[in-house]
Amino acid sequence: MDSSQYRDAAHTAIEDIIKYHDTIADRPVLPSITPGYLRPLIPDSTPEEGESWDAIQSDLERVIVPGLTHWQSPKFMAFFPCNPSFPAMLGEMYSSVFNAAAFNWICSPAVTELETIVMDWVAKLIKLPDCYLSQGEGGGIIQGTTSEVIVTAVVAARERIIRRRLVHIPESEEKLDKMAEMRGKLVALGSEHAHSSTQKAAIIAGTRFRAVPAPQSSGFAVTAAALRTTIEACKAKGLEPFYFTATLGSTATCAIDDLVGIAEVAKEYPDIWIHVDAAYAGSALVCPEYQHLCKPIEAFDSFNFNLHKWLLVNFDCSAFFIKRRKDLIETFSIVPSYLRNDFSESGLVTDYRDWQIPLGRRFRALKVWFVLRTYGANGLRKMIHNTIKVGEYFHSLLESRQDLFTVVTGPAFGLTTFVVNPTKVEGRTEALDLEEGNRVTKAVYEAVNRKGEFFLTSGVLDGVYAIRVVSATENAEEKYLKLLFEVLIKLAEEEREAK
Amino acid sequence: MDSSQYRDAAHTAIEDIIKYHDTIADRPVLPSITPGYLRPLIPDSTPEEGESWDAIQSDLERVIVPGLTHWQSPKFMAFFPCNPSFPAMLGEMYSSVFNAAAFNWICSPAVTELETIVMDWVAKLIKLPDCYLSQGEGGGIIQGTTSEVIVTAVVAARERIIRRRLVHIPESEEKLDKMAEMRGKLVALGSEHAHSSTQKAAIIAGTRFRAVPAPQSSGFAVTAAALRTTIEACKAKGLEPFYFTATLGSTATCAIDDLVGIAEVAKEYPDIWIHVDAAYAGSALVCPEYQHLCKPIEAFDSFNFNLHKWLLVNFDCSAFFIKRRKDLIETFSIVPSYLRNDFSESGLVTDYRDWQIPLGRRFRALKVWFVLRTYGANGLRKMIHNTIKVGEYFHSLLESRQDLFTVVTGPAFGLTTFVVNPTKVEGRTEALDLEEGNRVTKAVYEAVNRKGEFFLTSGVLDGVYAIRVVSATENAEEKYLKLLFEVLIKLAEEEREAK
Repeated sequence: MDSSQYRDAAHTAIEDIIKYHDTIADRPVLPSITPGYLRPLIPDSTPEEGESWDAIQSDLERVIVPGLTHWQSPKFMAFFPCNPSFPAMLGEMYSSVFNAAAFNWICSPAVTELETIVMDWVAKLIKLPDCYLSQGEGGGIIQGTTSEVIVTAVVAARERIIRRRLVHIPESEEKLDKMAEMRGKLVALGSEHAHSSTQKAAIIAGTRFRAVPAPQSSGFAVTAAALRTTIEACKAKGLEPFYFTATLGSTATCAIDDLVGIAEVAKEYPDIWIHVDAAYAGSALVCPEYQHLCKPIEAFDSFNFNLHKWLLVNFDCSAFFIKRRKDLIETFSIVPSYLRNDFSESGLVTDYRDWQIPLGRRFRALKVWFVLRTYGANGLRKMIHNTIKVGEYFHSLLESRQDLFTVVTGPAFGLTTFVVNPTKVEGRTEALDLEEGNRVTKAVYEAVNRKGEFFLTSGVLDGVYAIRVVSATENAEEKYLKLLFEVLIKLAEEEREAK
Repeated sequence: MDSSQYRDAAHTAIEDIIKYHDTIADRPVLPSITPGYLRPLIPDSTPEEGESWDAIQSDLERVIVPGLTHWQSPKFMAFFPCNPSFPAMLGEMYSSVFNAAAFNWICSPAVTELETIVMDWVAKLIKLPDCYLSQGEGGGIIQGTTSEVIVTAVVAARERIIRRRLVHIPESEEKLDKMAEMRGKLVALGSEHAHSSTQKAAIIAGTRFRAVPAPQSSGFAVTAAALRTTIEACKAKGLEPFYFTATLGSTATCAIDDLVGIAEVAKEYPDIWIHVDAAYAGSALVCPEYQHLCKPIEAFDSFNFNLHKWLLVNFDCSAFFIKRRKDLIETFSIVPSYLRNDFSESGLVTDYRDWQIPLGRRFRALKVWFVLRTYGANGLRKMIHNTIKVGEYFHSLLESRQDLFTVVTGPAFGLTTFVVNPTKVEGRTEALDLEEGNRVTKAVYEAVNRKGEFFLTSGVLDGVYAIRVVSATENAEEKYLKLLFEVLIKLAEEEREAK
C-alpha cells in the first residue's frame, strides 16, 4: 500500500468511523452472535498474495461489526465506561506513524518529555499533592491498565521492604536466601471490594494476599480500624504486611475507603506501601467539589486512575503517580550493554522503562495532550457533571418505585446498585426473602442482557445479588435511563409474578 | 470536536502522516535537541477552555517532530527495527473507534475471536508445530512486548512446578508456607546473551536468576551441555531451576541457541518450562528456508516473536504461543462476581484475561489481520529477503576493508557486529591490542551517533566492544549502507590516527 492508496483507504476509514460514531445509539449494545461465529466466515490462513483494501474494508461491516459489543453506546451501562474521543483518536493516528519502541529517552525524546509534562498537567488538574509532580522526587507515568500499575506497585513494595530490612547484609548467596525467606512471609492487602487486580498482582509477585473486611455497615469501605486489625492479625501469625490497595471508588459500588483514617495508619507502619486505586472515580477529581479527597494521598506512596475510563482518552491509558520514583527504579532498573547511553548515564533524563514492567513504550502522551487541550478543564468537568446528573436521575426513578426496587448503594460517581424486591409473602423468613430477592434480581438482570438492547453488570454485596447501573458514556442522556427503567419495570413485574 | 470537525482534522492528519512517511529518509535520524528541551516550549498546565485543532496540529511540527527519533528512517540501524505500515495504521484507526476494554469474550466477541483466528494464521505462516494451534490444547495471544510475555511465562512456570510438587497437600496455611519455601529455591535461567527481560521477569516473579554461559567459542549461543551443566550446578546447591529462555536470535548478535539439543534436555527435566524468545528473528520464519528452526519448538512450552519489529505491524504486538493454555489459566484466572457471565462459565469461549497480566485488552488483532491480508505471505517474505540482502551487502563492504574492520558476528538475520581495528604496534600485548581496539571502536560508534545522520547501537561481547548494524526498515536499501560505510571509513581513519 503506497501513500496514495493509504490516503484513499484512510478517507474511507474516516467515513466508516463517523458513521459508526453517529449511529451508535441505534444499535443493540450487545451482539446477537454465538460463540465461534467468526471462524466459518473467514479463510483459515494468510493469503499467499496481497488483497485490496476494498476487500478488507468490506469485511469489517460483514464479519467484525456484528461481533462487537458497543461500549460507546449510551445504552452501555455495564462495568465502567471506556470512553474514546475524536481528539484521542487523532493522537493514536500520529502515534502510529511516529511508531517507536521508546524505552529510553534517546529512543525518542519527545515521547518521554511530553509524557512527563502531561502527567504533571494531569496531577495539577486533579489537585494531587505536589509530591507527585516530576519536579521533586516523584512523577507520573502512563501505563496500560490498573492491573499493570498494581503489579508494578506490589513488586516495588515487596523489594522495598526487603531492601530496608536487609540493608546491613552484603550482596551474597546468604542474602539471596534471606531475601527469599522474607518474601515468603509477605502479605499484600486489599479491601474485600478492591478490584481483583490486587489479588492477581499478589499471585504474580509470589506473595500472600489477605482481604480487609469492608462490610455494608461501613458502606463497603475499608476503615482505618479494619485495616489496623488485619495488619495486626497478620503480624500475630508471623506474617509481614507490606502493601495495601486503598480504593477510591470500588468496582462494585464506588465506595471510598477511609483515606483520612488510613493516612494515620500509614504513619504507624511506614514500611507498608499504600497505593490508591481510583481507576474509575479518579476522573471526577477534575471537579473542585471532589478535590478534598486528594489531600490524604500525600501520606501514601502511589496513586492511579484510568483516563481511558471516564476522561475521554482511548484505551489504554492509566496514569500512575509515584511519590518517590527511586522506589520504582531501584527495583526495575537493569542496564545491559546494548541499552547504555550517555544521556541515561548523565542522570538528566527519565528512562521510563525503569518505572514499569515492559521495556518498550508507545507514544500515549499525545492522545492525553490532545484531549486535555481540545476539551480544556471545563469541558472535562462538563463530562463528569453529566454522568453525575444522569446517575442521580436514574436513582430518582428507582426511588419512585420502591414497591419494585430497593437501592443498595449510590448514586456514587454515577453508579447505583439496586435489587428487585421479592413479592411479599406473609411469615416468610428473612433468609427466604433474601433468596427470593436474589432470584428475581438475577432473573431480571439476565433478561435485560439477553435482550441485548442494554448492557448491565451485577455483583454480590454481602450476600445480596444486586444490579449495577452506571451510564457514563460521552453521549449519556436521561432519556436512555428512562428507557432502561421502563424495561426494568416490565421485567420485574413479569419475574415477580412468574415464580 | 464533532464528526464534521473530526473529518477535517483527520484529513489534515492524513496529509501530515503521508508527508512524514514520504520525507523520512531526508531527516537526520536522531534529534538535535538536549534533555529538557520541551518544557519551555509549552504551557505548564491544562487550559481552562478547549483549543482549536489548528492550534494543536501546528504544535506537532513546532515542538514534537524536532524531538523524535525517526525509527522508520532507512538510516535507523540501531537496536532492532520497529516497523509500522499503512494497513497496520488503518487497523489502529478502527481499533480506536471500536474502543473497548475487552477482557472477556462477551466484552466484545469479535476482539477475542479474530485474535484466536489470526494467531492461528500466524502460527501456520511460520510453520510452528501444530500443538500451538488453538484447536488443540494450545493457542496464541497478542501481548504488548516480549517483556510482558516473559513475565507471564516465568510466573506461570513458577506456579506450575509448585502445583505439581505440592499437589498432594490440601489447601491450607501449611500449604502456603510450603509454597513460599519452594518459591525461595526457584531459579530462572537464560543465556548470558538473552535479553534482559528474563532477568527482569525473575525480579518481578521474586525468584533467582542464573545466566547460562554462551561464549564466543559456541557462537554466543547456549549449547545443550552448557544448559545441563547450569541446571546441575543449581541443583547441587539445593536450588530448583524451573524456567529457561531459549533464544532464537539474541539481541547482541542474533545467535540461535542449540534448540535441537535443548529439546533433548527438555525431556530430562520435564518440570522446567522452556520458552523460546524469537522477538526479532521470529519474523524470518515466514520464509521456508528458516522453518526447520521451528521443529524442535514442539518439545518446549511456549514461543513468542514481535510482529512489531520486522513484520510491519505497528508497535505493540507480540505474538505469544502456548502449548497448553491451561498452564496459563491455572495461574492467572480469578473470577470476582462482577466478571461472572454465562458465556465464560460455559467453557465455549476464550477469556484472554486469564492468559495475561492485565485485565483489559485492545483490539490488536485488526492490525495484524490487515497486514497479513494486504501484504500476503509473499509480500512479507519479500520484506525479510530485502533485509537479509542489505545485511549481506554491508557485511561484504566490511570484508572489503579488513585493514580497518573485523567482523565479529554475522550477517545473521541482517545483523552484523564488527570492530574497528587498532593501528598495529610492534610488540604490543594482546590485552593492550584489545584495549586500543575497544577505544577506537567506541570512539567511532559515538561519533556516528553524535552526528545524528545514522543511529547505531553497540554491545560488549566477551570483553570486545563491538558496533551492531541492522538495517531492517521497510525502506532499507543498499545505498544507505554504502553511505554509512563511507562515514565509518572516514571516522575510523580519523580515530586510528588520533590516538
